[in-house]
Amino acid sequence: MNILITGGAGFIGSHLCDELLGQGHTLVAVDNLVLGREENIAHLFSHSGFTFCKGDILDAAFFEALFVDNRFDVVFHLAANSDIQKGGNDPMVDYELTFRTTFNVLQCMRKYGVAQLVFASTSAIYGETTDLLWENYGPLRPVSNYGAAKLASEAYITAFAASYGIRAWITRFPNVVGERFTHGVIYDFIRKLKNNPHELTVLGNGEQIKPYMYVKDLVRGIMYVWENSHEPVNVYNLGVDSRTKVKDIARMVIEELGLQAHIVYTGGDRGWVGDVPEFKYDLSKIHLLGWQAQHTSDEAVSLAIKKAIEYSK
Amino acid sequence: MNILITGGAGFIGSHLCDELLGQGHTLVAVDNLVLGREENIAHLFSHSGFTFCKGDILDAAFFEALFVDNRFDVVFHLAANSDIQKGGNDPMVDYELTFRTTFNVLQCMRKYGVAQLVFASTSAIYGETTDLLWENYGPLRPVSNYGAAKLASEAYITAFAASYGIRAWITRFPNVVGERFTHGVIYDFIRKLKNNPHELTVLGNGEQIKPYMYVKDLVRGIMYVWENSHEPVNVYNLGVDSRTKVKDIARMVIEELGLQAHIVYTGGDRGWVGDVPEFKYDLSKIHLLGWQAQHTSDEAVSLAIKKAIEYSK
Repeated sequence: MNILITGGAGFIGSHLCDELLGQGHTLVAVDNLVLGREENIAHLFSHSGFTFCKGDILDAAFFEALFVDNRFDVVFHLAANSDIQKGGNDPMVDYELTFRTTFNVLQCMRKYGVAQLVFASTSAIYGETTDLLWENYGPLRPVSNYGAAKLASEAYITAFAASYGIRAWITRFPNVVGERFTHGVIYDFIRKLKNNPHELTVLGNGEQIKPYMYVKDLVRGIMYVWENSHEPVNVYNLGVDSRTKVKDIARMVIEELGLQAHIVYTGGDRGWVGDVPEFKYDLSKIHLLGWQAQHTSDEAVSLAIKKAIEYSK
Repeated sequence: MNILITGGAGFIGSHLCDELLGQGHTLVAVDNLVLGREENIAHLFSHSGFTFCKGDILDAAFFEALFVDNRFDVVFHLAANSDIQKGGNDPMVDYELTFRTTFNVLQCMRKYGVAQLVFASTSAIYGETTDLLWENYGPLRPVSNYGAAKLASEAYITAFAASYGIRAWITRFPNVVGERFTHGVIYDFIRKLKNNPHELTVLGNGEQIKPYMYVKDLVRGIMYVWENSHEPVNVYNLGVDSRTKVKDIARMVIEELGLQAHIVYTGGDRGWVGDVPEFKYDLSKIHLLGWQAQHTSDEAVSLAIKKAIEYSK
């Protein structure tokens, strides 16, 4: 199929490019290279099925031209702000990068008759609760602007699906780590330990516990949902059954760096404004569809720590 | 209290102005008079507690100046597109008038330290289902751009509440009718019968069934929720337990006009793109809070038909 992928040079987007090309699809990847990196896709430039277009989805003239020049069968929309903390400081960040990008994608799909959308959503739409999160859970009360912008995107996707016949596959990601990832708690710990190898300050009480998913598992999960789920709108949590505590991530980073640092907790149950200290997915729906992740949360974190140390050198 | 009301010259907004002034509050009503009408609030111009500012919430300079000039305690945000069908033809209508207005209100509240928001939401956020709709219902799958824009607004309200300490009262309206209403199925029927008093064409099969609420009941319900509910975010369905079928509205309009028109149905289960042919609220939460509407759905429709005929003269 002829596929447009937004955020194609990003952490997760670039892995999706690898996977989609491997399956024989033809790809146009678009990225403004603000958060994405050319080095993530440089190895694909020689591939005959791959075209990269540097530009901004919010630049209407640039973005529409892609639809005029290509007859896309599917859009994989991954472009978004990926830094929840940053979005908490300035609501315009997620409004523009996470929400308005989605609205523009939908408008172009409608105008140029593209019938399929695969969308990267998030656990952050559920908000803060210790309840088991299944796909039909309510109420949805995002506590971050990032979560709000993703829920706003989902709302418009379902409306466009009902009104204009677009079919959609919405997968809700947990924390994702692995090759090419760029930020998050693991990097924060490494940076702090470089400044002071004897002491590591951890925001909150360290008890925050979340599922971390290995990026290659995630990408295979997205593909599986797209290929095997056939409703007009298909919504799936993607995740792993296990979870990892922040205090254990701190311990693992210190160990991997061969240090003996003392850990200091700032206290409180969360790290920062918009942080959700704990969540747990109900994964019955994706398991029933016949898919599950190959790596546990601890395995994903362990692998990511090795990569982050390598990238930080 | 010192209150800003957006959409203050609109159908529901103007009734809220009446009620809030009656309770002794001081009001600044803002409206661009595109959907709102000066005649709805002309009787308030001489009231010492009432100020009307004509202008557009999407005009940042105009709107911010209101917050600079006034120290608001509360914002009642009612400004929105009110024509769901129109929004189905052009997605930008609800994006701008229903969603971006809310985002601008939230940004100003954050910037100028206004702590309370009363927001007009809608049954349309739930989407199309025959399930009983309670406040924590999921999944939320709006089928109209209007519903999507209102859900996007709710998402941002909960995120701003969690991140910046704004308290919110979200009431989800059913169909609302009564004095000063301007459009909808009742007007459509009257207009058609003026063109042809012998035959009335009804979109769909006439079996569409919805609760219609009398506007003065609605306004009292909004006030009751605001005054008696004390969570950081308070979400309530507002409605009536009874419902009215489109075919009965057709019959009632013909009767009230003293005609003998024959009714022709176009067929299908809905009137137009984005229409939800049937919904039913669970009203336990608002009833438990100690409030219920005084007028049934049929009473509200009957009263609205008389008013619409009067306004159409």
